Amino acid sequence: MPAGQLGTPLTPNGRALLTLVEQDVALIRDGAAAHDRFGEFPVETFERFLDDGVMAGTVPAELGGTGVSCLADVATVLAAVAEADASTALALHVQFSRGLTFAYEWRHGSPPVRALAERLLRGMASSRLVVCGAAKDHHTAVTRLTPDGDGGWLLSGRKTLVTLAPIATHFLVHTQKAVEGEPVTLAAAVIDRSSPGLTVLPEWDGLGMRASGTCDIVFEDCPIAAEDVLQREVIGAHSDRTLAGQTVSSITMLGIYAGVARAARDIAVAAATRRPTAPPAAVRALVADIEANLYTLQSTAAAALANADELNNDLSGDLDERGRRMMAPFQCAKLAVNRLARSVVNDCLTVVGGAAYGAAHPLSRLYRDVSAGWFMQPYTYVDAVDFLSGQALGIDRDNNYLSYRANTAAAH
Amino acid sequence: MPAGQLGTPLTPNGRALLTLVEQDVALIRDGAAAHDRFGEFPVETFERFLDDGVMAGTVPAELGGTGVSCLADVATVLAAVAEADASTALALHVQFSRGLTFAYEWRHGSPPVRALAERLLRGMASSRLVVCGAAKDHHTAVTRLTPDGDGGWLLSGRKTLVTLAPIATHFLVHTQKAVEGEPVTLAAAVIDRSSPGLTVLPEWDGLGMRASGTCDIVFEDCPIAAEDVLQREVIGAHSDRTLAGQTVSSITMLGIYAGVARAARDIAVAAATRRPTAPPAAVRALVADIEANLYTLQSTAAAALANADELNNDLSGDLDERGRRMMAPFQCAKLAVNRLARSVVNDCLTVVGGAAYGAAHPLSRLYRDVSAGWFMQPYTYVDAVDFLSGQALGIDRDNNYLSYRANTAAAH
Amino acid sequence: MPAGQLGTPLTPNGRALLTLVEQDVALIRDGAAAHDRFGEFPVETFERFLDDGVMAGTVPAELGGTGVSCLADVATVLAAVAEADASTALALHVQFSRGLTFAYEWRHGSPPVRALAERLLRGMASSRLVVCGAAKDHHTAVTRLTPDGDGGWLLSGRKTLVTLAPIATHFLVHTQKAVEGEPVTLAAAVIDRSSPGLTVLPEWDGLGMRASGTCDIVFEDCPIAAEDVLQREVIGAHSDRTLAGQTVSSITMLGIYAGVARAARDIAVAAATRRPTAPPAAVRALVADIEANLYTLQSTAAAALANADELNNDLSGDLDERGRRMMAPFQCAKLAVNRLARSVVNDCLTVVGGAAYGAAHPLSRLYRDVSAGWFMQPYTYVDAVDFLSGQALGIDRDNNYLSYRANTAAAH
Amino acid sequence: MPAGQLGTPLTPNGRALLTLVEQDVALIRDGAAAHDRFGEFPVETFERFLDDGVMAGTVPAELGGTGVSCLADVATVLAAVAEADASTALALHVQFSRGLTFAYEWRHGSPPVRALAERLLRGMASSRLVVCGAAKDHHTAVTRLTPDGDGGWLLSGRKTLVTLAPIATHFLVHTQKAVEGEPVTLAAAVIDRSSPGLTVLPEWDGLGMRASGTCDIVFEDCPIAAEDVLQREVIGAHSDRTLAGQTVSSITMLGIYAGVARAARDIAVAAATRRPTAPPAAVRALVADIEANLYTLQSTAAAALANADELNNDLSGDLDERGRRMMAPFQCAKLAVNRLARSVVNDCLTVVGGAAYGAAHPLSRLYRDVSAGWFMQPYTYVDAVDFLSGQALGIDRDNNYLSYRANTAAAH
Repeated sequence: MPAGQLGTPLTPNGRALLTLVEQDVALIRDGAAAHDRFGEFPVETFERFLDDGVMAGTVPAELGGTGVSCLADVATVLAAVAEADASTALALHVQFSRGLTFAYEWRHGSPPVRALAERLLRGMASSRLVVCGAAKDHHTAVTRLTPDGDGGWLLSGRKTLVTLAPIATHFLVHTQKAVEGEPVTLAAAVIDRSSPGLTVLPEWDGLGMRASGTCDIVFEDCPIAAEDVLQREVIGAHSDRTLAGQTVSSITMLGIYAGVARAARDIAVAAATRRPTAPPAAVRALVADIEANLYTLQSTAAAALANADELNNDLSGDLDERGRRMMAPFQCAKLAVNRLARSVVNDCLTVVGGAAYGAAHPLSRLYRDVSAGWFMQPYTYVDAVDFLSGQALGIDRDNNYLSYRANTAAAH
Repeated sequence: MPAGQLGTPLTPNGRALLTLVEQDVALIRDGAAAHDRFGEFPVETFERFLDDGVMAGTVPAELGGTGVSCLADVATVLAAVAEADASTALALHVQFSRGLTFAYEWRHGSPPVRALAERLLRGMASSRLVVCGAAKDHHTAVTRLTPDGDGGWLLSGRKTLVTLAPIATHFLVHTQKAVEGEPVTLAAAVIDRSSPGLTVLPEWDGLGMRASGTCDIVFEDCPIAAEDVLQREVIGAHSDRTLAGQTVSSITMLGIYAGVARAARDIAVAAATRRPTAPPAAVRALVADIEANLYTLQSTAAAALANADELNNDLSGDLDERGRRMMAPFQCAKLAVNRLARSVVNDCLTVVGGAAYGAAHPLSRLYRDVSAGWFMQPYTYVDAVDFLSGQALGIDRDNNYLSYRANTAAAH
Repeated sequence: MPAGQLGTPLTPNGRALLTLVEQDVALIRDGAAAHDRFGEFPVETFERFLDDGVMAGTVPAELGGTGVSCLADVATVLAAVAEADASTALALHVQFSRGLTFAYEWRHGSPPVRALAERLLRGMASSRLVVCGAAKDHHTAVTRLTPDGDGGWLLSGRKTLVTLAPIATHFLVHTQKAVEGEPVTLAAAVIDRSSPGLTVLPEWDGLGMRASGTCDIVFEDCPIAAEDVLQREVIGAHSDRTLAGQTVSSITMLGIYAGVARAARDIAVAAATRRPTAPPAAVRALVADIEANLYTLQSTAAAALANADELNNDLSGDLDERGRRMMAPFQCAKLAVNRLARSVVNDCLTVVGGAAYGAAHPLSRLYRDVSAGWFMQPYTYVDAVDFLSGQALGIDRDNNYLSYRANTAAAH
Repeated sequence: MPAGQLGTPLTPNGRALLTLVEQDVALIRDGAAAHDRFGEFPVETFERFLDDGVMAGTVPAELGGTGVSCLADVATVLAAVAEADASTALALHVQFSRGLTFAYEWRHGSPPVRALAERLLRGMASSRLVVCGAAKDHHTAVTRLTPDGDGGWLLSGRKTLVTLAPIATHFLVHTQKAVEGEPVTLAAAVIDRSSPGLTVLPEWDGLGMRASGTCDIVFEDCPIAAEDVLQREVIGAHSDRTLAGQTVSSITMLGIYAGVARAARDIAVAAATRRPTAPPAAVRALVADIEANLYTLQSTAAAALANADELNNDLSGDLDERGRRMMAPFQCAKLAVNRLARSVVNDCLTVVGGAAYGAAHPLSRLYRDVSAGWFMQPYTYVDAVDFLSGQALGIDRDNNYLSYRANTAAAH
């Protein structure tokens, strides 16, 4: 693959992590169909990932991990996994994402935050800690921290679409913090899976990404220690600096859709090459489009990742501006990737023909998986239009999607 | 719905058939999710269709049916069913298609052909005959008629993707007829399901259209009486008159994708209307596109159907020319319908957001069903490009897809 | 051309008008390049149109015209002209549009309105009257009627993009009517070109449609008799019945873009056919797309025209509902036609290759002309999104574009 | 602009050249409309470019130039010029391209080739030499070198679409070399404008890129010295190593379309921002698409340029493989850039509305200029489909477009 196409890691740590992962790719691919069919999380794959250190891929080397901090490399590793199984890549992304954002807290946070981050990162590296992010409230319940009267907190509510949940040991829960007489703020609470009051519901049944271990989590007055709460901003603060962390947390998912599109392309090209007759006109035109669209997809994802990598390491300027400068290219790339990945997969189905429409054909799984990108945070397509046009036209807006959603929910 | 949008039948018979079908639509809609999930053919729906006379909808009134001969009306009825469940509409199309083509044979065939057609049509009207077309050979086996030495024939081979098979009483099998010393020709054989040597395999497991009762049928030296064979042309004859019957047989399927797109549109509009806040910019832009694309889809399908209806009743001119003049607009419309239906469904998913990605959400079924159009005979996209460009550029080509496939298979 | 593709008129009057026009098509085609290059209105063509009665094509037969009232037929005639030269068709549309709307006023208006309409229609039929609509205010000036103190009116302001102006004898000016102490209303004033205070500015210099005779008209206290003013609604009235007349006035322009796309298609197919080698894959794929897109364009335009024709003759129901039911399909079709016509022309340029990029090549004119559709009233794409999404989502809005613009202008 | 978006040069030389060019950008922009209107080459701009050393931008520093060898930087400089005027950028590209390819010959050629290259490069740096490439034969005449009987050559034929011709001092003419008894080969001849028998025809009249100084050149037995001929391969050799030089020669043109799209975007955003009312839904959706498409365009162009830069400096591996690895990403990017640039410009017209359709509006020039990319060598879209699908599907093909064209021409 040419350079800049999310095929080759840029850093030694990235190369080391890819090598680890590549050992497992064949097994992941072999299991993908069955895990998809039954909506079953591939626990055995993640056991191997835990054994091999893959799950500590983005934990700093100083704390025992592989130390991949380059976002492009994380995306490259996820693309390689997604070529074999997109669901597995999506679940792995969750842990990688925690490593990346905790590493930031560990480097730049206040002392208690650093202590919390270090504890979790060391656990990820050496004690098989698996930490899921839980961002989205179930539509029936707002998740809230309230004081327990004793300096700690109680967490209640319900989170939905929490991926990697079957093997999670901890959850990082984005929540509202409501203290009588104070404005409601956002916060993130770390909670142990074994906490009283925490229930992991059965796995979600999705159109695609069915083996990603995606569940709802219910919290009923779960106790949270004060030091396990990361304070975030006031709701409605229109603070754009938070966009940096949100970019870091999600941008590497672009690699997943690059992997999906590549897998589809390889299947279609193999099918067209196998046929004994010269390829018909439409097949040649479709294959050329597939090649061009895949190249465009990967180039655009790589550009947004390079931009995020550059700004991720540079805290010297205005932090709100930095947030916007990370998020805007990410969202441009997300739009392009979502469209191009779907287009590539559709064209590949057309090249392969009727056989691809069987439930057991790998393209039919890719057809279902590829649409997930349209629903991934931040932002949905609808929110991205508001954000990108707002940026271009100078329209003020609460760009923090967690704050925006909290506000919208509060209004009704 | 405005006129010319496959919403209102054009003939009294069409209106009568739509009225019959509308009684069942609510029940069909209620069962769609479960039938899709388990890939289960809705036998009870088709029992009602048999009881109510729906299954004789296209049987001439003189022979006891509802007598719908207007292709646009058949498509309109199928659209109404497909709004509730596309799989059911696809299976129903099979029987409607037999009624339409047998009625042609009954009116215009030679005496023995008319006799066969009349027998089948009367059976469809009064004896619960259900006749499936079986057009596509399984890739492992060519279906062939060989002489039984006694004036009759033996049928062997395997057909794939035979829809409506679970309740079929007869199959119309497109086959090759091989007689020593004569050129191989195409033929169509009518065979009773209970014939010795005939096996209906378990239902196909597809990405979508999962409740359409689609199966493979294996034939092992099945005896066929001489009068149950309809002679077709020599393979490779480049006879375009056959395109007329192939148009009649398949063009009403355009209604199915109109129904799918309408169902998706209604779900998306309902979801956007239900929200308490003013619709965001992207939702308005998407809804406008959905409206325009749905209108375009329906207008184009209706135009091709009107063209086919006009030529279907006019045997006065050159029959090859007539075949091409029926097929070319049909294929133009099929391309447009396939693209627009997919686009509408995708846009609807985006409007609804993450909820639509759940396996239980009706849009996720529509997302899988809508792609089936790309694989329906005649032609695939790839063949349609060869046909349409060949017509425009004056390139000779065997446009009979059954002959073309037989020839291609023979070459390898 | 198949039926329903704007190739054959549906009524005898339509056929008569097409026959008249077809006499001139070759000459129009021959002059198109030069008129386009110099942005020169083809006066000689319109002299012939006046001589032959073409300019009275939509004047009722009772008043001396050809009596074409079928909108689909008007579009069909315009398509035939546009195949030769889109600018000429656009200018001819202006007069046809006046005939159609005056005929409505003549049939359904109050006695003085009928008298005015009859006078103008008879003049169009027998005295070479040419009447331009002037709808759009120049951005520097609102056009207004004020009382002259003597029972008549004075008209001041500036209209822009008035097509067919070089040979206009009269203008129908959409204007605001401001009477002290009364709410400002909309009105339409008929004014003679020779009126004192009226200046026709030199022809507009456009990207395309350069020979359409499009000018600005300046009015400085031009006297208007009371009987030459057609009263319209109060600004901001949200009256949707006015959408019917606006549909009639503009929908036949869809035929122009059908003609443009057809002309492009014929050039591309001829070029591809002329080449000595077998067409490459991309050419076949492009030609198939061109065929399908042209068919889709024409089918969709024809459907919206048929819908408008049906409702145009039916004043029995709710008139606001009728207005919306005419406008919504028109706008769906306009979106589709604008996109498909551009896509067809672009694909044709690609098929022809570099030669098409020369200024003298007819495709390069079509490339410029085809974009005009995006800017034609009612509505622009931006307004159409608001209208169509508003209709689907039940959002109230002032759908009368003249009122809406007047209101928006007033606010700033 | 974010990194990797062709906004900032990567090398010091690139930055120096951009600084030189930026001095002239305002003047270029001011003159663009008039030069476009009259199809007039901006001689005065190029006089300044000669005065300031811009025309020696890609001449190696050792030979007196600015020494920009980084292709991405050349594209970045061209993008900055194209934002002001695409025609000027296209003409400037011609000289830059000569500098780049002569520098390669100077570094890697045989001694006589090096001598020729050095002479030309020194002339470009210090004697105001301007060297146009002339690649495409006029359809009426094949360009041929034949022996003059005295060790030299005679050149005859006609080249078309030679850009920058009005101020050229020399032409690099791609030609066939026909020697009795030997196979016809390709060659490139350097010829002085003042040579006897050479005629520069009046400027071409194009749809767009009208001020690029594009002419036909006629050669009638023009004498060429032996040392002024660069030998190329045998026609039909299927040698892919030549793709490297063809990539270098043309890939920087991607920057021109990035500049066109950027200019359009800035105009549309300024227009939307200027309006007093909140932007309508469609404007926000369009602006978001414009942003995303522009980002995608620039990222993809930058990726292909980075790939070409990397391989351009690496002659260590298989040279045929290297040629393909340079050309394939270039062609993928060219497809994407052509589509995206056109889409951005179209969307910008829609945002701006009717005003953009005036001939004097800068968007109407961009609308005409942007299509040029579809016709630029190597390859047209049609050839690119054959090349890219051939690469993916393993189909052998003569990928050298000069050889391919010579062969196709010879066959007829």
